Amino acid sequence: MPDNAARHPNLSHTVMTELVLPQHTNAYGTCFGGTILSWVDIAAGVCAGRHAGTTAVTVAFDDVHFILPIRLGDIVNISARVCHVGRTSMEIRVDVWRERYGGPREHANTAYVVFVAVDSDGKPVAVPPLIIDNDVDRGSFAESSERRVVRMTKAQRVGKTEA
Amino acid sequence: MPDNAARHPNLSHTVMTELVLPQHTNAYGTCFGGTILSWVDIAAGVCAGRHAGTTAVTVAFDDVHFILPIRLGDIVNISARVCHVGRTSMEIRVDVWRERYGGPREHANTAYVVFVAVDSDGKPVAVPPLIIDNDVDRGSFAESSERRVVRMTKAQRVGKTEA
Amino acid sequence: MPDNAARHPNLSHTVMTELVLPQHTNAYGTCFGGTILSWVDIAAGVCAGRHAGTTAVTVAFDDVHFILPIRLGDIVNISARVCHVGRTSMEIRVDVWRERYGGPREHANTAYVVFVAVDSDGKPVAVPPLIIDNDVDRGSFAESSERRVVRMTKAQRVGKTEA
Amino acid sequence: MPDNAARHPNLSHTVMTELVLPQHTNAYGTCFGGTILSWVDIAAGVCAGRHAGTTAVTVAFDDVHFILPIRLGDIVNISARVCHVGRTSMEIRVDVWRERYGGPREHANTAYVVFVAVDSDGKPVAVPPLIIDNDVDRGSFAESSERRVVRMTKAQRVGKTEA
Amino acid sequence: MPDNAARHPNLSHTVMTELVLPQHTNAYGTCFGGTILSWVDIAAGVCAGRHAGTTAVTVAFDDVHFILPIRLGDIVNISARVCHVGRTSMEIRVDVWRERYGGPREHANTAYVVFVAVDSDGKPVAVPPLIIDNDVDRGSFAESSERRVVRMTKAQRVGKTEA
Amino acid sequence: MPDNAARHPNLSHTVMTELVLPQHTNAYGTCFGGTILSWVDIAAGVCAGRHAGTTAVTVAFDDVHFILPIRLGDIVNISARVCHVGRTSMEIRVDVWRERYGGPREHANTAYVVFVAVDSDGKPVAVPPLIIDNDVDRGSFAESSERRVVRMTKAQRVGKTEA
Repeated sequence: MPDNAARHPNLSHTVMTELVLPQHTNAYGTCFGGTILSWVDIAAGVCAGRHAGTTAVTVAFDDVHFILPIRLGDIVNISARVCHVGRTSMEIRVDVWRERYGGPREHANTAYVVFVAVDSDGKPVAVPPLIIDNDVDRGSFAESSERRVVRMTKAQRVGKTEA
Repeated sequence: MPDNAARHPNLSHTVMTELVLPQHTNAYGTCFGGTILSWVDIAAGVCAGRHAGTTAVTVAFDDVHFILPIRLGDIVNISARVCHVGRTSMEIRVDVWRERYGGPREHANTAYVVFVAVDSDGKPVAVPPLIIDNDVDRGSFAESSERRVVRMTKAQRVGKTEA
Repeated sequence: MPDNAARHPNLSHTVMTELVLPQHTNAYGTCFGGTILSWVDIAAGVCAGRHAGTTAVTVAFDDVHFILPIRLGDIVNISARVCHVGRTSMEIRVDVWRERYGGPREHANTAYVVFVAVDSDGKPVAVPPLIIDNDVDRGSFAESSERRVVRMTKAQRVGKTEA
Repeated sequence: MPDNAARHPNLSHTVMTELVLPQHTNAYGTCFGGTILSWVDIAAGVCAGRHAGTTAVTVAFDDVHFILPIRLGDIVNISARVCHVGRTSMEIRVDVWRERYGGPREHANTAYVVFVAVDSDGKPVAVPPLIIDNDVDRGSFAESSERRVVRMTKAQRVGKTEA
Repeated sequence: MPDNAARHPNLSHTVMTELVLPQHTNAYGTCFGGTILSWVDIAAGVCAGRHAGTTAVTVAFDDVHFILPIRLGDIVNISARVCHVGRTSMEIRVDVWRERYGGPREHANTAYVVFVAVDSDGKPVAVPPLIIDNDVDRGSFAESSERRVVRMTKAQRVGKTEA
Repeated sequence: MPDNAARHPNLSHTVMTELVLPQHTNAYGTCFGGTILSWVDIAAGVCAGRHAGTTAVTVAFDDVHFILPIRLGDIVNISARVCHVGRTSMEIRVDVWRERYGGPREHANTAYVVFVAVDSDGKPVAVPPLIIDNDVDRGSFAESSERRVVRMTKAQRVGKTEA
């Protein structure tokens, strides 16, 4: 049963570390885009579930640019943070960095993933409001509001609404 | 070595069938969004590689709406088709349907994935032009051109260009 | 609840595309025979389930010859089609081709897999008759009938019957 | 470099134990036929490699009857033993039993798998002759010789020979 | 329902064979320590479950030294044997050897894993006493008794007891 | 090429989040001990590699007590921190917590894993000294020194030394 007092994004912030193994790569030693999006989906889903206090299901992936390739043996650092909430939906920003032992972390891509909190029958449930008390989270919230308008316009065309 | 005579999208059209097993689902019997995007990435990558005649790497996933949930035991039908090509890049449209034995196929989501053809050193290589000879492919090409403009505008902000 | 009006093999024909990744290969870059048979089993099982309108369980794999090796990075094309039905059993012919980007599809092996349709308690249930209206399917049906006789003779020795 | 002195089947006999986990089952708690054949292929391949003293690749699976279903939570006992050798080929008999904690082992199926020994370039190499010194192995060898004739007759039709 | 007549360790002795595939290795062709411990856990769990006649859950891994590295393409031989039982707990000794085709088996590591037998609600249940009738098992039992004292002393510090 | 100036444990501290899926559990919904140790091994290996600036291989797992079971659907939080270094070896402390959406984090187990830094030929290489500037790290270092003495005494019996 989720508790709906407003919550700070720090409380649900999720950090994940993965190591790129042969099973994650194509025949040429590069990590699949789909593998990275699987990790992004799990990190974002845990973050959304922590905010909501209940399970959340993926509703949309906003466009993702793969800026740097991720390679066999790379360490992948993933950080997921709530940037916007609606009544039952949450938008999570996920940043991905690649790293080699002894080298720098390099930003590889950013994704925005939308989730809806659900109860055990899969019915949408209300989520706690977001406490925003700093300029970075304020900026994220504003950009997210823009994306939400674009997304809802498109969703109407395919017959879906986002609460 | 890719042969660069123009090619019809029928020649690279890719059809994939997957069965949703326990390993693809969360604790509540629903298939992960990330798992679906992994299948989409492989189907689209095979389609792009068939058009280019060489390996292709994922550059961007356009926004994806998950319209219907996909469940444990569902059959997943995936269809990938080239809808636009640039000099070294290709946009692939991927449609996903869910199906149960004895039931209808229902449209679950659509994704647009951009790939760049690369040689064995990972350097971009030119791809064959696309032969467009019917109204459906003509419509896809036009919509894709619009998305390409939006994507390139965004990509400029993050310092990437798409050839 | 399966609907038992006769059905055409086109309605259950199943096409699958897989990409050979490092996780499918041995230490020398060749795809395991067992991996290929896993894909064959899933493609054939989906085909059988589509014909029956209910789940089907594997009863027998007829002898399979691996004519060409399948290698890391190959695209594997699998096609499964019902070629014979009994009261509760179905024989599915599965053809496997290997392909490289820019190259031809080469036939790698053929398998015949027998399934029995079952209800949710695992009890065999009757399947729809097969509509045969062309010479290719007619030839498959005839060859399948021969294999069925051989299989049932062997099965009697191990105490099993095929309905 | 394989040593080609004749070898006793006891020296390459291979025993494998697997536990049926959710990732091996369909949506109804039954282990896939293809999963079982993957384990059979690995057990038989290790057995063939041990006899040959070098890697062996799968050439054919003889017909397999699934006599008893294997279920989630079952322990799977697999035993692989060389029953026949040609110049570069080996036939391995694999028996599979299912078991539950506190219950009996029950015979679930038998498979005959043919391998060819290869060097590091994938070229067939000669394998050691088989020492046969007891009636059970003698019986296996005789039955195997019959299957070999059937298999080679079929293989000729598809343009393959077995050394 | 476990039958609690005393049982000989031969009755639950478990032998497992695994082949090191690309999916088990890091980017440099060496098998992960964690992968080996996963196999050890399954072999030991099957052995414990066979002795108890019911499911057993892992309680502790005693210190494990990795004496020899295990490599891509190695065959891994695992042997698990009950060496001590308490009222509801069992200690299993697991030995791991590596092997290459045509080469010797080399001892790679030994682990001691403690399990508790549980019923279907996860509640601990009594296990059969151990029949010890030879010097090797007698020696294992004595060494195990020493480890048990050390483990229970440590466990008291973290607030756990081992029945 | 590792840089051997002394490094603070904060620089290599590694945080990992995993979600327990059906593929990680036994037939009764409990996560395998071996699965948890696989995650611990990867988190600890990344931490060791970050400290060393090069790959590190697992040498030993100290005894691990599983204090609380980890269940299907749990979020697993893993934290790995260098607590001691020798000339080429590093001891990493790994803490594991389980969590449910809307509930507390509960400490599930602690493990100590020893790694040796290696170059690309697998030869041990020297690692940077550890900067210790607070009481928590000082306490960890002292306890680790005790474990190291115990471990090296045992290792001498099995013919291994830890640099």
